[in-house]
Amino acid sequence: MGASSEALTQVLIPVAALVGIGFALLQWLLVSRVKVSSHDSSNGYKVKLIEADEEEECIDNIEISIKCAQIQHAISLGATSFLFTEYKYLGIFMGVFGVIIFLFLGSVKGFNTKSEPCTYNKGNTCKPALANAVFSTIAFLLGALTSVLSGFLGMKIATYANGRTTLEARKGVGKTFITAFRSGAVMGFLLAANGLLVLYVSIYLFKLYYGDDWEGLYESITGYGLGGSSMALFGRVGGGIYTKAADVGADLVGKVERNIPEDDPRNPAVIADNVGDNVGDIAGMGSDLFGSYAESSCAALFVASISSFGINHDVTAMSYPLIISSMGIVVCLITTLFATDMFEIKNVREIEPSLKQQLLISTILMTAGIAMVSFFALPSEFILFDFGNEKEVKNWHLFFCVSIGLWAGLVIGYITEYYTSNAYSPVQDVADSCRTGAATNVIFGLALGYKSVIIPIFAISISIYVSFSLAAMYGIAVAALGMLSTISTGLAIDAYGPISDNAGGIAEMAGMSHKIRERTDALDAAGNTTAAIGKGFAIGSAALVSLALFGAYVSRAGIKSVDVLTPKVFIGLIVGAMLPYWFSAMTMKSVGSAALKMVEEVRRKFNSIPELMEGTAKPDYANLLEQRRQQQNCVKISTDASLRAMIPPGALVMLTPLIVGTFLGVETLAGVLAGSLVSGVQVAISASNTGGAWDNAKKYIEAGGSEHAKSLGSKGSDCHKAAVIGDTIGDPLKDTSGPSLNILIKLMAVESLVFAPFFAAHGGLLFKFI
Amino acid sequence: MGASSEALTQVLIPVAALVGIGFALLQWLLVSRVKVSSHDSSNGYKVKLIEADEEEECIDNIEISIKCAQIQHAISLGATSFLFTEYKYLGIFMGVFGVIIFLFLGSVKGFNTKSEPCTYNKGNTCKPALANAVFSTIAFLLGALTSVLSGFLGMKIATYANGRTTLEARKGVGKTFITAFRSGAVMGFLLAANGLLVLYVSIYLFKLYYGDDWEGLYESITGYGLGGSSMALFGRVGGGIYTKAADVGADLVGKVERNIPEDDPRNPAVIADNVGDNVGDIAGMGSDLFGSYAESSCAALFVASISSFGINHDVTAMSYPLIISSMGIVVCLITTLFATDMFEIKNVREIEPSLKQQLLISTILMTAGIAMVSFFALPSEFILFDFGNEKEVKNWHLFFCVSIGLWAGLVIGYITEYYTSNAYSPVQDVADSCRTGAATNVIFGLALGYKSVIIPIFAISISIYVSFSLAAMYGIAVAALGMLSTISTGLAIDAYGPISDNAGGIAEMAGMSHKIRERTDALDAAGNTTAAIGKGFAIGSAALVSLALFGAYVSRAGIKSVDVLTPKVFIGLIVGAMLPYWFSAMTMKSVGSAALKMVEEVRRKFNSIPELMEGTAKPDYANLLEQRRQQQNCVKISTDASLRAMIPPGALVMLTPLIVGTFLGVETLAGVLAGSLVSGVQVAISASNTGGAWDNAKKYIEAGGSEHAKSLGSKGSDCHKAAVIGDTIGDPLKDTSGPSLNILIKLMAVESLVFAPFFAAHGGLLFKFI
Repeated sequence: MGASSEALTQVLIPVAALVGIGFALLQWLLVSRVKVSSHDSSNGYKVKLIEADEEEECIDNIEISIKCAQIQHAISLGATSFLFTEYKYLGIFMGVFGVIIFLFLGSVKGFNTKSEPCTYNKGNTCKPALANAVFSTIAFLLGALTSVLSGFLGMKIATYANGRTTLEARKGVGKTFITAFRSGAVMGFLLAANGLLVLYVSIYLFKLYYGDDWEGLYESITGYGLGGSSMALFGRVGGGIYTKAADVGADLVGKVERNIPEDDPRNPAVIADNVGDNVGDIAGMGSDLFGSYAESSCAALFVASISSFGINHDVTAMSYPLIISSMGIVVCLITTLFATDMFEIKNVREIEPSLKQQLLISTILMTAGIAMVSFFALPSEFILFDFGNEKEVKNWHLFFCVSIGLWAGLVIGYITEYYTSNAYSPVQDVADSCRTGAATNVIFGLALGYKSVIIPIFAISISIYVSFSLAAMYGIAVAALGMLSTISTGLAIDAYGPISDNAGGIAEMAGMSHKIRERTDALDAAGNTTAAIGKGFAIGSAALVSLALFGAYVSRAGIKSVDVLTPKVFIGLIVGAMLPYWFSAMTMKSVGSAALKMVEEVRRKFNSIPELMEGTAKPDYANLLEQRRQQQNCVKISTDASLRAMIPPGALVMLTPLIVGTFLGVETLAGVLAGSLVSGVQVAISASNTGGAWDNAKKYIEAGGSEHAKSLGSKGSDCHKAAVIGDTIGDPLKDTSGPSLNILIKLMAVESLVFAPFFAAHGGLLFKFI
Repeated sequence: MGASSEALTQVLIPVAALVGIGFALLQWLLVSRVKVSSHDSSNGYKVKLIEADEEEECIDNIEISIKCAQIQHAISLGATSFLFTEYKYLGIFMGVFGVIIFLFLGSVKGFNTKSEPCTYNKGNTCKPALANAVFSTIAFLLGALTSVLSGFLGMKIATYANGRTTLEARKGVGKTFITAFRSGAVMGFLLAANGLLVLYVSIYLFKLYYGDDWEGLYESITGYGLGGSSMALFGRVGGGIYTKAADVGADLVGKVERNIPEDDPRNPAVIADNVGDNVGDIAGMGSDLFGSYAESSCAALFVASISSFGINHDVTAMSYPLIISSMGIVVCLITTLFATDMFEIKNVREIEPSLKQQLLISTILMTAGIAMVSFFALPSEFILFDFGNEKEVKNWHLFFCVSIGLWAGLVIGYITEYYTSNAYSPVQDVADSCRTGAATNVIFGLALGYKSVIIPIFAISISIYVSFSLAAMYGIAVAALGMLSTISTGLAIDAYGPISDNAGGIAEMAGMSHKIRERTDALDAAGNTTAAIGKGFAIGSAALVSLALFGAYVSRAGIKSVDVLTPKVFIGLIVGAMLPYWFSAMTMKSVGSAALKMVEEVRRKFNSIPELMEGTAKPDYANLLEQRRQQQNCVKISTDASLRAMIPPGALVMLTPLIVGTFLGVETLAGVLAGSLVSGVQVAISASNTGGAWDNAKKYIEAGGSEHAKSLGSKGSDCHKAAVIGDTIGDPLKDTSGPSLNILIKLMAVESLVFAPFFAAHGGLLFKFI
């Protein structure tokens, strides 16, 4: 591969990233065409009026439309307020942790500023450890900021789009779908393209200092993954607690005690519930997947830097992970056009197939893309480092590694759909078990979640076996990248869910007609399933990513084997396998406690302001203002409770690698990482799917779409009540504790990777003293 | 150590076993002093009348007493009928699996009858592989039969004692307690002593053939562990499904739908429920712990046989594991006297402390016993085999190994008590969360179960680290034996629970006075906690035992290291970690489906025979006979459903090692064992404790023993209803899927150990073809 291909690579990557950003902005522009203009200043509260000229619904709905815009504004305000409060905590965390990184890594060689001989690239000198400490810290901050930006922009577009989706619902299901989907696409493309661009630019700039020292360069770059992932901790865990505290709290008082419908504006917690969808499912999910993406890129780059690519300074081959991501953006762009421009949804039944089609199309196109990239960017044969041994690898090997990751993702997505969609028998069985009450519903739901683990684990195992055998840890890293290469499409269909959910909520709160609500409900039901698919994807990729990071950690810590038959490793393994339980106990309890606070607040409101129950009956402004004040109050309670509640689980994740590495050493830490990986992925999948199944079992009974469903009774029947209990239990499982485990396993791994030189040099204090 | 100590050992072990059996029979005799004589032939149904001369309650209760005896008889009949049906399946299984063992092991060297050079004892010749196949099969059958016998005798004494306990309840709480506890002790001592005696005699007889070939001898003896453990599969899984199908079925219709109290004789499923306690919690628990005991002994003996003990033919040192068990019987005998003879319970509040004291006393005495045994039986220094390396070990090292296992058991027991007894805040918090309904109850209960895993895992990790570091896999095996050395006491207090539970049920069904029911309830509440402690013990020991078996397997399969960084091992690890979920999905679904069948049957009865609801109001014989027929019918339904339902999970456990070993080879199988161990132990602990906590949270609300408890309302309140839902969900978790996981992790490990030579010789077919 000569200088020409090198130059081409250098151009192609940033171009792909910029095309992705441009495409995202174009989608945003298209969404913004749904006009929401003029304002209502009567109460000093700026509300935009909807241009009502092309509506299907009659003109007297203007008042409803104002409400609609007001609600969108309130949700946006609540979400922004949550995120800004979160950023305060986050700022402190970034500062403190940045200092920790610098001190730990700087101390590896006693803050020495002298250059040293390289570890892998024999005979050459590399930059001092102190430089790596500085650049790792910078990379950490860059990763964190990119993640924050992606999450924030995602939330912005989501809260910008939800009201517009509601309004489009008046024009038919096709337009509604396109608006929601386009908005999801903005999020997907911005995130993937931003991540790629910042990473590319950082490498370029770091190279100005590092020059030929690629070992140090890519070691420092791993900080980018750590930064991205530690923000995901805030997004997923904090956002996850927020969204479910609000949801459970709103449901417990509203649906169960007061017997008023979901999203009823009389319930002061509904705005907080809708805000939760945006900060948890949009910003949280975004930062989680961004973290995975950043980490798998960093793991692949790090492993590549100590292979023959790195030693021969083959820029194009070295950039293989970035080129795959660039190709992913292009493929997803084409795929998106299938949904938005080539076909039109005419019927609500076409929604779910159309979203599933997106996955399939992107996977097929990407397979071709991977083949192109593999044969163009890679030398036909090269040497990889395999824990002390050298391994000869061919370019078509890597094609298989990336592809198998990609297809495993599709399999996991489809299996998740099978277990959580109410179109199939598993969820229908769970719904059926509601006949004998909530207890059997819970028993069957838990059993379903456990069962749903089987095939995803086989899919992950096969990808691991194939990619591990073909290309060692580099194979795993690129398999993870393969699974994440269609991230833009994945995120688009994933973000589509909460946007539709919000749109439905807004329609209900604005008192729009039954027809509108039916359309948004259909969109939302499909969104539930795609959200489950997205979670399956996130967990599957997290498993591969953490394994890749684990491999990179082992290489960097200089461990030759992680032998289960040594006591140090075994206790790490069993304690690691325990961590997901400890972590889940914390997050579930947090949701429970935060929800109880919410319940108290809402109950207090209902009792002290009896007019609240007649809220919609008296639409005067004083009442509306009062409602809004109460809603903002609920938002604040949820914000404070969730951010405080995320500190203990956050500390568990961040401190475990530091404590284990420092006191018990690198082998035990390796055991902990392996144990938490193999155990956490099971807990995460089963929790997510159990929760998803309960949610859709409830929806199945509510919709009454078949003879069987009708026989279970409708809303308010005993069966339905049992289903609601299951749904409420499932909320923290599927949206907090389950997905948060991704962060647990990934973050511990990337943190270990970044701190590996310190642990290798100074770790294992306890055993040294005994 | 000379011939004199050898002769002493040869005498001491069988003497201790016989003393244990004698003590058990003595306790039985003492229980039988509670007279239950004469009969009622009016309906051709033999029922014993109670001698009513020394009763506190007045003489007109004679009719109630007859009922009491009838019920005891019905329970005994139902339990016997279940066990005999189970034995039919079991007979087939034993036959088939015996043949499999013979064929697989015989084929290792192509059924060759020639002697071969030994593997470890260099320069000597050992018996042919075919002989090992034959003797392994025999040992398997012996282990299975001993296990069956222990379970059967335990069930017999339990159903013999439950009615007697009810009758003693008329004389005060002290006598009731002693009767229940003595009956538990019969079970505990019979099981431990039988197990030891049969193992000792088998070794003695096998030696007649094997002579100096100790490698072959102790290899074959591992079949004993496999036999014991595979019967535990039937006992734990079959019995577990039975007991919970009946319990959940009875509760769903009786308590929830018909609003009649627990154990009401009008409910035709109550006898099945009480039978379940005996076949699940007594016979199942007994065979589980017997399996652990047999397996840890076999693992220790096998590892010792390839150490310097075996090579030097040091009989006394070789018998160390058996001597520990002998000492355990003596220690437990003394401990039992503390409960039955030295102190008398005068108040219901003394029950739980008195049971906990048993654990503490036996642990302290046993520590001294271990010290004696270690310094008497072991040479002061010897060589152990440590996966290819030799390791020098001192006798006091082994003292520490055994003791740490023993004390870890105590810690696990006490922690389990903390999380499941309603005297402490965790269960009280769960009860409190019932205020906001069943959903928060479930969320808090799940979180409690997850949290309760932390300290037991640390206790297990520390024991593993210490014993592993001091004496490699032999250390682990004797640590497991240490934990199990007080098995007689552990089983006594564990079996005490279901006996008291049954006694309460009989009191209710016989319509005895409120005072009596209060006493049995107090015994039962303490029994709930001790049952949870027993489960904690069983899981903790299962973890250590399977690790020891895993170590023995690795040695026998000739694996030098189990490196997580090889794809074969890693996929084993992640798939192994998935198995507990797959298994739990099956067992929980089985309970759900079997319970639904029960519900249908009971509902049908209630609807077709409306007089049933007035059952106790019309105590004429025709009605009683009809009741009894219906009850036997429910027993039959539960029996059939549970035995059929246990086939899929049983097949999963039995086939996984065979399939993985044969097709993927010994390394992947090692990964599977490690993965299922580290993941299964977490699922098992959390499931058991969650279920126990829900049960006692319900009891806490019912008892209303504090201001806080009273504020939650009494029976029938909304809070109580929410608590009942939690209790029902917890039933299969704590009594079926949770404890069954012990079997999963142990049985796969011992099966792998037995089949290791076959897998090492012919395994890994799939990789050979690729």
